[in-house]
Formats: sequence, C-alpha cells, structure tokens
Amino acid sequence: MAYDTNNIFAKILRGEIPCTKVYEDEHTLAFMDIMPQADGHTLVITKEPAETLLDLSPEAAAAWIKTVQKVSKAVKTAMGVEGFVLMQLNGAAAGQTVPHVHFHILPSSLGALMTRAHGAKMGDMAQIQGFAEKIRAALEA
Amino acid sequence: MAYDTNNIFAKILRGEIPCTKVYEDEHTLAFMDIMPQADGHTLVITKEPAETLLDLSPEAAAAWIKTVQKVSKAVKTAMGVEGFVLMQLNGAAAGQTVPHVHFHILPSSLGALMTRAHGAKMGDMAQIQGFAEKIRAALEA
Repeated sequence: MAYDTNNIFAKILRGEIPCTKVYEDEHTLAFMDIMPQADGHTLVITKEPAETLLDLSPEAAAAWIKTVQKVSKAVKTAMGVEGFVLMQLNGAAAGQTVPHVHFHILPSSLGALMTRAHGAKMGDMAQIQGFAEKIRAALEA
Repeated sequence: MAYDTNNIFAKILRGEIPCTKVYEDEHTLAFMDIMPQADGHTLVITKEPAETLLDLSPEAAAAWIKTVQKVSKAVKTAMGVEGFVLMQLNGAAAGQTVPHVHFHILPSSLGALMTRAHGAKMGDMAQIQGFAEKIRAALEA
C-alpha cells in the first residue's frame, strides 16, 4: 500500500503535531505512547517513511533496532522493571493502527499486557510526562 | 546475568539438538517454534550469544533485524496472511522462557494472539514441517 503522508506519525515527524519526545537522531525518533498499554510505554519510529517492516530499507531497519536497543535500556532503568516486551504490528489485519512502522517498548510482562487492551484508552498526560523525564534522564546518564 | 551456554537455542546453534530450519546466514538462524502461538510461528535468533536485546552488540542487532525482515516477508507470503506481529520478550519477568535473544514472527493478529497462550503447548510436527517447507520456498522465490 502507498504510504499515507497524513498519518499521525508523519505529522509528528514534520512537527505539525506535538509528541513527548525522549530521543531523536538522524534516522529515528522515540516518544511516549499516549494510549499506554503499560506505564512507560514508549514508541520508536523511523524517519524513513514506511508503513510496515517490509516497506523499510535494511539500512533504516538497522538504525531503528539500534535506537530501540538504546531506548529500551533507558526505559528499563527509568521504570525500574526487570523485563520488557518489544512488539511491532504489521498491517491493519495484525492490529496496526497507525500506518507508519513503529516498535512498542513495553516495560511489562506478556501476561500483564494480555489484560490491558492495545491503543484503547488515553493515558494521564502528567504521569506520561513524568515517565518521559525519567527516561530522558536515564538516556543521559 | 551471565549467558547460559546450555540453553536450548545455544544447543540448536551448536547442532546438538535439531530444529526445523528455514533460514541461516553468518550472523543469524531462523527456525519454527515447536510450541506455536499461531500457524507459521517462526523464531529468529542471533549467533552472537546474548540473553536479551540489551546484551547484544549493535552490529549483531542490525544483522538480526535484517534477517527478521527477510524471513517475515517469506512467512507472510507462505502463510497467506495480510498482517503479522513481531514480539520479543526480554527477561524472565517479561515472560522470556529461553535465555537466548529471539524474535517471534507471528502470522496472526494481536487480538488472536491474546487468546492463545505463549509457549504453552506442543504443535503438530508434521503440520509445522509443512509450514516450514512453504516458508523456505517463499525465501527461495
């Protein structure tokens, strides 16, 4: 499918709508999910426009996983969890809601995630900002 | 935690126990999950010994995601699905059962996965072999 340049993450990348950013580099951007499935739920997206993993260049995928690694480490430290889940949905049929490729970093367990629906409910923005501050601090440490 | 060289994926990498392989290169190995959470459930592991994403070198992570991309494409084609889920569990606290870093490629939807427990039940090996043949054929196409 052709990439939809008006999807919400494309708008975030263009700075047309705000996000609670925790990390950015030349190829990637990480920010808080506003419909968190777990406290500290963070998203990592590529700057390369792509709908799914299969539409992404291998080079962009490599830059992406390196950022996921870096940000996951900070999320784990900031949230004080023992483990975390990476999840990545490809295609509306799989449950993908925003058609720009993204990794979910979920400082939670698979069991706990099964009890909290995906992208279902707005989070408390003040609490999310607080988590973001901790994650940014962990990235700078 | 120190890497456990006797975990089941380390044994598969050393050829001490068999697996239903679909792809292998210098840095990675992909094979069928024998406790599938969806038909065509495939695993991709790194040859670099690492327990979680955070223990992996950035170079190994980059090689890994490139293989995940390649194998996902074949799994999607072979299984005839519209979408698929990537999942990756880090730490026993998150639900990781084998302490060697691995991606799950799940030709399924998030909703459907929530109804089928992770690593809970042995699959039908003849059926799994059939899926593997289709995936290998898609990789060679």
